[in-house]
Amino acid sequence: MNKDTENTVGESKEHDNPSLIIGRNAVIEALRAQREIDKLYVQRGFSGSLVAIVAKAREAGVIIKEADSRKLDYMSGGANHQGIIASAAVKEYSTLDEALSLAEERDEKPFLIICDELEDPHNLGAIIRIAECAGAHGVIIPERRSAGLSFAVGKASAGAIEYMPIIKVRNISETISELKDKGLWIYAADLDGELWCEVDYSGAVALVIGSEGRGVGRLIKEKSDFIVSLPMKGQINSLNASVAAGIISYEIARQRGNMKEINP
Amino acid sequence: MNKDTENTVGESKEHDNPSLIIGRNAVIEALRAQREIDKLYVQRGFSGSLVAIVAKAREAGVIIKEADSRKLDYMSGGANHQGIIASAAVKEYSTLDEALSLAEERDEKPFLIICDELEDPHNLGAIIRIAECAGAHGVIIPERRSAGLSFAVGKASAGAIEYMPIIKVRNISETISELKDKGLWIYAADLDGELWCEVDYSGAVALVIGSEGRGVGRLIKEKSDFIVSLPMKGQINSLNASVAAGIISYEIARQRGNMKEINP
Repeated sequence: MNKDTENTVGESKEHDNPSLIIGRNAVIEALRAQREIDKLYVQRGFSGSLVAIVAKAREAGVIIKEADSRKLDYMSGGANHQGIIASAAVKEYSTLDEALSLAEERDEKPFLIICDELEDPHNLGAIIRIAECAGAHGVIIPERRSAGLSFAVGKASAGAIEYMPIIKVRNISETISELKDKGLWIYAADLDGELWCEVDYSGAVALVIGSEGRGVGRLIKEKSDFIVSLPMKGQINSLNASVAAGIISYEIARQRGNMKEINP
Repeated sequence: MNKDTENTVGESKEHDNPSLIIGRNAVIEALRAQREIDKLYVQRGFSGSLVAIVAKAREAGVIIKEADSRKLDYMSGGANHQGIIASAAVKEYSTLDEALSLAEERDEKPFLIICDELEDPHNLGAIIRIAECAGAHGVIIPERRSAGLSFAVGKASAGAIEYMPIIKVRNISETISELKDKGLWIYAADLDGELWCEVDYSGAVALVIGSEGRGVGRLIKEKSDFIVSLPMKGQINSLNASVAAGIISYEIARQRGNMKEINP
């Protein structure tokens, strides 16, 4: 980052991304090796040998995205992509049970963060970083309409992605039912709820953070046990999703105590 | 933002920046009209008529940065910059007295946020947004080694820049002395301090946030009344500067109470 050039900060080039798998053979090999693929980008209106590759990927449960050739050119930085680019996950996903076991090992009540369709990799990365710092046991993301464990998310997490279990689920709403069955309380961060600092987080907690544009989905909000809100004292009425996640996560940490050792 | 293209999120092109003043005549006119200029970028090793323009800008207190021609080309998006580009502030700076009067008008104890050399415009913008949401009365930035009120900062503030007084000072350390004389308590967010939630913020507060790389400057830390720290419960030991600012700002808001109206 050029410290003098404030307006270019945040710029990222996809072709600096080491987790891209570019071209037909490379993608075929990655699928054969059962590498964890975050998303498969294929040229819009694809045909020929691409059809078989896409079928194979779909069979393996990979999310397929059609993209125009300009986007593929941009992603590959001019390398010959032959109409197909896969983005490999930079880390393997964990299971819900692994996250809950981690809480048990640490002798703590579970604390999970559910990201409901956060598509901005910077926000998802920042939330993984917060989860790690605030002592959460896992971050749950949906399979679709979400940033995945891409290179950009890993970078934005400042290394936290290496430590924090990330669980990818098919359907957030079903996962919430499962978590409730396991005794977790669901807290959705949204408008018009209770003050974030007047709610009790001492039990097993799953905190739902919605996307900046749409907030938490209606169905998910209905299933939640609590809606928790941050007061907005000024003229604008929303905080960045990761900042809101940080404030509520540290309120959870504050209430749970056990924080005497600062920066051990 | 293309929602499908997670790796390109955050990319910004300087030449989409409407606050750039490009070329000799345009800059001369801006200086003559006393437009508030955030920074003046001039070709490294400049000579000829640029010398007089730079002298005039320096006289007006503008920060001058030498840049290579490639950078100027990039900033201007290929427009003929003639070796000089000014970045206009997107809003006028306020004075310390204006910020303190705002607190008085609202019948509140002052709450200021001091950004100690935050060079990332996204972080500065996010902190201005937090300041507005958490009910602060002003944000103080230093003249040098800081992002200014650029287009990128305004964008990252999500509109909060329009409402929040921003004060640019020559020297943060001197400003802190002045604030202490006016009865404010100085809280520096850094490692190895007191737990952020066990400190009393009910008086007049100035919260100092340091840059992500270096933290709060030594001299400033020595002058502070309190060092406040966020516990790090995981393997990595720092949060994003704006997330830390958000957590502490909302702890200040929590302790001050007066938050019954959520999203009025």
